Amino acid sequence: MHDDAAHLPGVADDGAVPQEGAAPSARAARVSRRGLLGTLGGGAVGAVLGGAAVALGRGSAAAFEPAASSAAPATAIVEFMGEHQAGIVTPAQDRMHVAAFDVTTTSLDDLVSLMKDWSSAIGFLSRGLPVGGSAGAGGDDLLSPPEDTGEAVGLTAGNLTVTVGFGRSLFVDAEGKDRFGLKSKLPEALIDLPHFPGDQLEEARSGGDIVVQACADDPQVAVHAIRNLSRIGFGRASVRWSQIGFGRTASTSKAQATPRNLFGFKDGTANVKAEDASVVDEHVWISGLEGESAWANGGSFMVTRRIRMTIETWDRQNLGEQQLVVGRAKASGAPLSGGEEFTEPDFAKKGADGPLIDVNSHVALSHPSRHSGAQMLRRGYNYTDGTDGLGRLDAGLFFIAFVVDPRTHYVPIQNLISKQDLMQEYVRHTGSGLFIVPPGINMAGSYLGKSLLEG
Amino acid sequence: MHDDAAHLPGVADDGAVPQEGAAPSARAARVSRRGLLGTLGGGAVGAVLGGAAVALGRGSAAAFEPAASSAAPATAIVEFMGEHQAGIVTPAQDRMHVAAFDVTTTSLDDLVSLMKDWSSAIGFLSRGLPVGGSAGAGGDDLLSPPEDTGEAVGLTAGNLTVTVGFGRSLFVDAEGKDRFGLKSKLPEALIDLPHFPGDQLEEARSGGDIVVQACADDPQVAVHAIRNLSRIGFGRASVRWSQIGFGRTASTSKAQATPRNLFGFKDGTANVKAEDASVVDEHVWISGLEGESAWANGGSFMVTRRIRMTIETWDRQNLGEQQLVVGRAKASGAPLSGGEEFTEPDFAKKGADGPLIDVNSHVALSHPSRHSGAQMLRRGYNYTDGTDGLGRLDAGLFFIAFVVDPRTHYVPIQNLISKQDLMQEYVRHTGSGLFIVPPGINMAGSYLGKSLLEG
Repeated sequence: MHDDAAHLPGVADDGAVPQEGAAPSARAARVSRRGLLGTLGGGAVGAVLGGAAVALGRGSAAAFEPAASSAAPATAIVEFMGEHQAGIVTPAQDRMHVAAFDVTTTSLDDLVSLMKDWSSAIGFLSRGLPVGGSAGAGGDDLLSPPEDTGEAVGLTAGNLTVTVGFGRSLFVDAEGKDRFGLKSKLPEALIDLPHFPGDQLEEARSGGDIVVQACADDPQVAVHAIRNLSRIGFGRASVRWSQIGFGRTASTSKAQATPRNLFGFKDGTANVKAEDASVVDEHVWISGLEGESAWANGGSFMVTRRIRMTIETWDRQNLGEQQLVVGRAKASGAPLSGGEEFTEPDFAKKGADGPLIDVNSHVALSHPSRHSGAQMLRRGYNYTDGTDGLGRLDAGLFFIAFVVDPRTHYVPIQNLISKQDLMQEYVRHTGSGLFIVPPGINMAGSYLGKSLLEG
Repeated sequence: MHDDAAHLPGVADDGAVPQEGAAPSARAARVSRRGLLGTLGGGAVGAVLGGAAVALGRGSAAAFEPAASSAAPATAIVEFMGEHQAGIVTPAQDRMHVAAFDVTTTSLDDLVSLMKDWSSAIGFLSRGLPVGGSAGAGGDDLLSPPEDTGEAVGLTAGNLTVTVGFGRSLFVDAEGKDRFGLKSKLPEALIDLPHFPGDQLEEARSGGDIVVQACADDPQVAVHAIRNLSRIGFGRASVRWSQIGFGRTASTSKAQATPRNLFGFKDGTANVKAEDASVVDEHVWISGLEGESAWANGGSFMVTRRIRMTIETWDRQNLGEQQLVVGRAKASGAPLSGGEEFTEPDFAKKGADGPLIDVNSHVALSHPSRHSGAQMLRRGYNYTDGTDGLGRLDAGLFFIAFVVDPRTHYVPIQNLISKQDLMQEYVRHTGSGLFIVPPGINMAGSYLGKSLLEG
């Protein structure tokens, strides 16, 4: 079958290789017996990904409109195009699948085509459409692999957002050598994160040349997006690590209730909210870069940390200890200095035995007042990945934060937390990544990363 | 802190051990400084799990009613008590967390107390209440670990069902020795599953003395249940493996639309549906056992198989091949012999080149007509667990089926599939389990497994 299929346009381009197992000759015979080969050339095969990219290039949202027969419900759609990428200030969806990719090509042209193909696909996926916009799970073309893997057919767009970022390793290799002629455009702030005290990072859960964050109301929608982008990337990029997050641990809109993390505490009470535009502008969006780094204006930095919680240990601590560590009341989320959830903590307020909020509590050490006012837009997720072989759940927080500059808005904060935070006793950082998220697509014919790759 | 806490009733019973890291003396000093020790004895500490079990024993659903101040919304509740356990014919919820436990105690009394404690906790959790029924995430007792870990506070019950089953290894050890005096009650059908052709089972994903399946609309609710039961089990049972499933792949009610698996095909079209009571009675519920196995009547057998799909290979196959393998049309789910999704397959119907449905397609080999009419109630879930180190997503189907007898309703079917099914080229079985699910709690004062443990 492969031998036949490889002659079709759009299939060889898709990187088809012989499947494992059966002998090609037997498989060709099998398909032939089904009478499928008789339709060769009769279907609408085409170079589908290229075609989709062209559709994007036509510059109209209407280019994504489906044929009536394959229309997904036009509900729960987050606009993909805009000055900034979606999935940052978008109200945090409940589910996430994030993947980091290693770029396996050495060709800048291939990298450009990958970003074009991904941008096109994200445009379709964001509208709840199959990749390519066709019937997705089927159609009539029996001789080509379906353009879309199909498992999201019948689901809504689920408020899917797909957010793409670039790692430092995309610009320079481990020896500092320029990989794609992009080294001069490497923003200074895209550093190698330092080793923080207590880090137990696993190489296989860290780094990556490109990150893709898919968030949606429905996990099947998020997984479908990552899986199809992975598929499109075949031969150009391969998945380095991926992580499912089952429940959001931050609100990015004042309209959202504050969710709880696996410590059982409300998380993200003091998060940057989309409604505070001036705060977002100051602390999230990159601006004012000049010269060869100017391409990144309108983007942001994305920090990812896989933070395993030693939940079995945590669960054995008494409520007083738990609240002491966090600095907030477990039930209400109010700071221990009093008030309700959104009351500003009063670190000076004392009880009979000293400050009501411990100086080494998490809320005290991470508070902007300790960090020249620096704030992060957090967008993390609870995760559970089976067990560790010692009868303990491998569970915790997949931390994601978007910041204007990690040198001022992440590294000093994490350093202080890693050194002093009482919470460190209950967490282990097992994965880490830093990526620069390019600006969004705000004009027809563009694609994610164009300002970097063609600027 | 531990030294102090250990003197409290309900805490030592909970298996508290010194936490990692800090020295007990330093921690005691820390808590003391917060002025918490002054409340010792003043709180409503109590032996909470035992108390909850007593509440169940009072025999009234009202025993689970919360105090007004901590009431979770009384919505989305599946009744926990009944002739059969919930979570089998319950309309399949969208999300799942399942865990298998190794029993670490050698005491039958401990095993009994574990099942009592779990039954009590499941009663609370099924009503959307924190374990113990108290405020859960807080309350006023600063000196005890909260009875509930808290991350589901504010969520509904999410239609949570928790279903418990026993593995053969609970009855006899690897040498066939009686572990808890239950060997004579081991039902004949609770066999060691044979090795099926192509099996690539991983020990760390297989087996287990007890299985706990938590299904809910919200994954945070399902994870919360497993986590709290794991916690309650400390010192008596430890997690052997656990698996998150993000999307259901079967319908168990005619009111549910058929979902899609990660092959992109509708899955479970021909599943046993709860509405067909006589089919369920014949193919799902154990009945008619006599003598020492009679305790199992009203129960069922649960088969679990972690089936990794080689989705990258699958995704490169053309639509014709994919449909040939499954025996159904990808878009509609209709059998290739024609009709629509729920049309019965016609295996005799021929086209120009032979049967329209290949004799080695999945639908042909798994059809009840090949297996003396045997049907399974399937309740599987799509999963994605990161990557495999080769840039491929570790994704597939966590297969769950409930059957009246695995010797007639699973083994022969899997044997045929493993030997001949075209689909085998695209899957690898990496985990396996067989458990007997005892009947439900249909009277006050009972608990899951009582008919086995006390019968």
